[in-house]
Amino acid sequence: MHTKLPVGILGATGIVGQRFVQMLERHPWFEITWLAASDRSEGRPYAEAARWRLKTVIPARVAEMRVSSAQPDGAPKIIFAALDSAIAAELEPRFAEAGCAVITNSSALRMQADVPLVIPEVNRGHIKLLECQTWRRKSGGFVVTNPNCSAIGLVLALAPLQQRFGLKAVMAVTMQAVSGAGYPGVASLDILGNVIPYIAKEEEKMEEETLKLLGRLNGSKVEPAAFSMSAQCNRVAVEDGHTESVSVQLKEKAAAEEIISAWNDFRSEPQQLRLPSAPEQPVVYLGAPDRPQPRFDVDCGAGMTTSVGRLRPCRVLDWKFTVLSHNTIRGAAGAALLNAELLKAQGYLD
Amino acid sequence: MHTKLPVGILGATGIVGQRFVQMLERHPWFEITWLAASDRSEGRPYAEAARWRLKTVIPARVAEMRVSSAQPDGAPKIIFAALDSAIAAELEPRFAEAGCAVITNSSALRMQADVPLVIPEVNRGHIKLLECQTWRRKSGGFVVTNPNCSAIGLVLALAPLQQRFGLKAVMAVTMQAVSGAGYPGVASLDILGNVIPYIAKEEEKMEEETLKLLGRLNGSKVEPAAFSMSAQCNRVAVEDGHTESVSVQLKEKAAAEEIISAWNDFRSEPQQLRLPSAPEQPVVYLGAPDRPQPRFDVDCGAGMTTSVGRLRPCRVLDWKFTVLSHNTIRGAAGAALLNAELLKAQGYLD
Amino acid sequence: MHTKLPVGILGATGIVGQRFVQMLERHPWFEITWLAASDRSEGRPYAEAARWRLKTVIPARVAEMRVSSAQPDGAPKIIFAALDSAIAAELEPRFAEAGCAVITNSSALRMQADVPLVIPEVNRGHIKLLECQTWRRKSGGFVVTNPNCSAIGLVLALAPLQQRFGLKAVMAVTMQAVSGAGYPGVASLDILGNVIPYIAKEEEKMEEETLKLLGRLNGSKVEPAAFSMSAQCNRVAVEDGHTESVSVQLKEKAAAEEIISAWNDFRSEPQQLRLPSAPEQPVVYLGAPDRPQPRFDVDCGAGMTTSVGRLRPCRVLDWKFTVLSHNTIRGAAGAALLNAELLKAQGYLD
Amino acid sequence: MHTKLPVGILGATGIVGQRFVQMLERHPWFEITWLAASDRSEGRPYAEAARWRLKTVIPARVAEMRVSSAQPDGAPKIIFAALDSAIAAELEPRFAEAGCAVITNSSALRMQADVPLVIPEVNRGHIKLLECQTWRRKSGGFVVTNPNCSAIGLVLALAPLQQRFGLKAVMAVTMQAVSGAGYPGVASLDILGNVIPYIAKEEEKMEEETLKLLGRLNGSKVEPAAFSMSAQCNRVAVEDGHTESVSVQLKEKAAAEEIISAWNDFRSEPQQLRLPSAPEQPVVYLGAPDRPQPRFDVDCGAGMTTSVGRLRPCRVLDWKFTVLSHNTIRGAAGAALLNAELLKAQGYLD
Repeated sequence: MHTKLPVGILGATGIVGQRFVQMLERHPWFEITWLAASDRSEGRPYAEAARWRLKTVIPARVAEMRVSSAQPDGAPKIIFAALDSAIAAELEPRFAEAGCAVITNSSALRMQADVPLVIPEVNRGHIKLLECQTWRRKSGGFVVTNPNCSAIGLVLALAPLQQRFGLKAVMAVTMQAVSGAGYPGVASLDILGNVIPYIAKEEEKMEEETLKLLGRLNGSKVEPAAFSMSAQCNRVAVEDGHTESVSVQLKEKAAAEEIISAWNDFRSEPQQLRLPSAPEQPVVYLGAPDRPQPRFDVDCGAGMTTSVGRLRPCRVLDWKFTVLSHNTIRGAAGAALLNAELLKAQGYLD
Repeated sequence: MHTKLPVGILGATGIVGQRFVQMLERHPWFEITWLAASDRSEGRPYAEAARWRLKTVIPARVAEMRVSSAQPDGAPKIIFAALDSAIAAELEPRFAEAGCAVITNSSALRMQADVPLVIPEVNRGHIKLLECQTWRRKSGGFVVTNPNCSAIGLVLALAPLQQRFGLKAVMAVTMQAVSGAGYPGVASLDILGNVIPYIAKEEEKMEEETLKLLGRLNGSKVEPAAFSMSAQCNRVAVEDGHTESVSVQLKEKAAAEEIISAWNDFRSEPQQLRLPSAPEQPVVYLGAPDRPQPRFDVDCGAGMTTSVGRLRPCRVLDWKFTVLSHNTIRGAAGAALLNAELLKAQGYLD
Repeated sequence: MHTKLPVGILGATGIVGQRFVQMLERHPWFEITWLAASDRSEGRPYAEAARWRLKTVIPARVAEMRVSSAQPDGAPKIIFAALDSAIAAELEPRFAEAGCAVITNSSALRMQADVPLVIPEVNRGHIKLLECQTWRRKSGGFVVTNPNCSAIGLVLALAPLQQRFGLKAVMAVTMQAVSGAGYPGVASLDILGNVIPYIAKEEEKMEEETLKLLGRLNGSKVEPAAFSMSAQCNRVAVEDGHTESVSVQLKEKAAAEEIISAWNDFRSEPQQLRLPSAPEQPVVYLGAPDRPQPRFDVDCGAGMTTSVGRLRPCRVLDWKFTVLSHNTIRGAAGAALLNAELLKAQGYLD
Repeated sequence: MHTKLPVGILGATGIVGQRFVQMLERHPWFEITWLAASDRSEGRPYAEAARWRLKTVIPARVAEMRVSSAQPDGAPKIIFAALDSAIAAELEPRFAEAGCAVITNSSALRMQADVPLVIPEVNRGHIKLLECQTWRRKSGGFVVTNPNCSAIGLVLALAPLQQRFGLKAVMAVTMQAVSGAGYPGVASLDILGNVIPYIAKEEEKMEEETLKLLGRLNGSKVEPAAFSMSAQCNRVAVEDGHTESVSVQLKEKAAAEEIISAWNDFRSEPQQLRLPSAPEQPVVYLGAPDRPQPRFDVDCGAGMTTSVGRLRPCRVLDWKFTVLSHNTIRGAAGAALLNAELLKAQGYLD
């Protein structure tokens, strides 16, 4: 359409960058006009620079685009970023300074006080935080982040419980897919027939980000949610989809049916606004005793719906259940894209 | 050797039955003289009846033995059992009635009040319970059980903590190997690239058995341990080795080094008696940040040592850590064998 | 639509039966009105009787249908069959005798002289063979079969070569997906981290069926193709998609580009008639040096296109290449469905 | 022992380097006194520089050794090499020039006319070729190589057939383990649930090396064997063990039993000399219909025995069968070690 907004992708050749390319093909509002990656890719056609790892075919128009240098010059005003944390810490501020709306999946700035960490269904109000950013005041640019792939599914499952019953404590043990580590990421020799009970910095991110996401915006800062939160993160031999065994303690007593309703009935602004990437149902409860499973449920809601199952009483906290969400769609590119759609709907991208 | 005790295996053709065969080859005290399985196997040479799934070669002497009918007639006085629960419920009492010492890995009788559920390093005193069994009084026979494969690694890791610091609460999330489901067990279509967040009755067993094992024998009954205990069980694409993400709340404050010492220093009767299958060290703490892992650590102590790692503070309970133990050795055949060795050392098999 | 032909599925609960259900949902010509399976499933709703193993949701209308007894009484006139060979040998003739058009994926009758073994793009003329069937003459019923899942991809790749250059010898080594063995099929303990160099009767089927498919109908019988053919079949830890390393000797000299054109240009009646399940391109050559791969290419042409790659000279025969095709779509349910569509187009189902 | 020969390892931190370390622990003749790797590892303790990926514990003495610079100065006279090909091409000649006996697993010099490519059981006579090396004449140093991991199992299976019946043609399709690609090597995203029908340069190596190995030393050069040879190489999700589906055409007619005897009876100098790493039986035929399999057979003969199975007639060539051998033991470190033992026995290391 002639009115589509031009967007760029920083870190376009990685696994999450590829998801951006995939999800932006035929997007009704946005159109990719610029792709950037590391120096080694600069000037090469995208199809050659990216080692495409997705099952759909690489979009023809994008395949032929030349990869640009990762500099604000010549970049469009809307930038999706999927950079390694160290590089993001350096580049994202530079793009924001140059007046770009940087909508990023990178972890670098997520916990910075004036940077909104947002899941549109959960804490869209936090977006206001970007008004506090110096970049915003100077150049109009800003940075908005989405959470870590392991935090987002959890928080989508927790938000309805927090809203209806309040949360006192949360414990989550993850079994995370290899695509979460990017490409080449996890060596096959490390994960075939194995479980790795460690992902660097993942537990810290999951704990901090969950509390920021479920926290309350108070003027120019987010007060983290007050419940106690503990995460243990494991890597398993799954391609896509982070599965989590979760236990929660609630502030108010709740019956199983009430909890299930809280999940199934959960709707929010992205659904009301019918944002293009918003799933009809952000959280769905599966009644079968052995679900959700990555094999069957990871693509639920085109990968944007979080599946929950196995709700049962917990003898230590109150309730336990299993959460599954797609780590490179809802947990990365789709998360950023939905943030962008919300920003557009709220007038931040005009 | 001429003084070896003849033993039989009930359920000799399954995965755990095969482990019994493997572990009893060259055992200094016991010698297999009898193998029984389902009717379909009766009369056939063992090598033909069993679909051997272990990496070592099937012992030549056993390979040629004929599989007997699963009846006490003609069976030796010491019986290792590895039966499906429903069949065990029927057969094990019959063998005990006939005067056999039934040392079983089956779950059928584990929670029965007069049946000892024993890990030699943890609660050997519970063995006295067998004196309360009617079988014992009538025929001299008895039944002694070992715990579920998911409970045993956990309990070995918990026992030193309980002894030194006391336990108030325990949460365990398992990632269990496919060999725990026997053979053929888990279909490859169900587990390749997948996590199954459900194993029938496993969580109940894990919770109940843990409390019985760490409970106190009071006259003719075991008072279950008083801490709260919650388990979540998942199946992953691992061949051998159950990995568990565990959180605990202790009664007394403990420093990390004290906890690690509690594990590394833990020794018990099987070590003092130098029982043939006792590992030198029942629990070992691994200092590397990403261990234990099934690939590298499952065979620790010939599969009889439980590996623990990643001790760190938990923001909900007190401490969290990862436990790994071999599910068909320490978690099944080796557990029963060590029970038998302890029974022998205590004079119950004379 | 009101004019859809009612069809039934024999063996509806298995993996291939499920694919029939999936592929027949929203089919423009056929509508499932009857589902049959083993006695154990009879009378139960399909959703309960079938352990649904596909990633799409079980169609709501079918989910509630009751599973019928596997008897011709009450069955519709068009039957898709996906039965174990032994059962098929007994049931399929019974349905044909009762006047049904039995379009089967089972192997039982494939090599029977008067039963057409058909791939619509390759040997649609063989369908005339059904006129020789006694059933056809007596009741109007008949049996038409499609080949084994390992043969069909190979034959689709061979047919264009046979037509243009002639074939003197073919060697194929397969690496077959676990779904080819049905459900539960291959035990996870057998295949995780493993290769099984044996699939019972598979090599015989592949060799015989290939020659029958590429043979010539001569009056009332098919003369098998005259080239020599050797197959070696292996099972690998792949969910869907049989990969094959193939070498061929041609009658006429051919250049690489000619061979590639032969594949890419190959079209046949199903494409000309625009049969609903016909892929636009039955065979596609992939130019990348490391393709086809099950992960990326198995769903090519909605699982109905055979992918070929890596054409290069062979120092023993003439050329070698890699073939991939979807074993439960093009190799089973889709094969039968395309046969049915061709039969309909040719007036055999009126 | 005080008489052990000091040896060094070039490329000590990689997967094959680690196997050297593992296999040289407690070696009766050799003792590691020097370890070298890339600059990045220099000066660091081995345990820190190497990401140890083997299941046995890293030997304590070696763990603490400092990694040296990859320069001949200070290196011992016997060097095992496990370098990337490009680096080997530069470094190996430098060590030979400096007077070292370089016994290498690298591919760089394998096909060089004056460099022996040796499997001790197959073509030990080719070792004489090293007398033609300029290095040998100048400094006493020399280079001896062993074949690619995919060639060695095949050649061990072919040698007895060549000796007894002669070979006219050989076709081999491999299914290769991920450890063959080193560490990190194959990305888990590339191989989980997948087959990759391509390994760069592998087919060329397999074809060329097989013919050189089975060729005849004629004065100062090796005449490659005269049969035609074709290889197709695939990567599968197996940790260790290359499985190969092989077809052969023989010069003389042979019965199945004769072929099986040729394999089982095959012995050679390493067995007669009782070289420490020589397997009792270099090739073993397994009678079960579904063997060899990596899971069960890869460690046969401590990883030094090649397993063969499934001998049956081939309709294109004469016979077909399956070969399995351990790719990092017999196919790499063990191959070089056995070469070193043979060199020692022949007086080349004095």
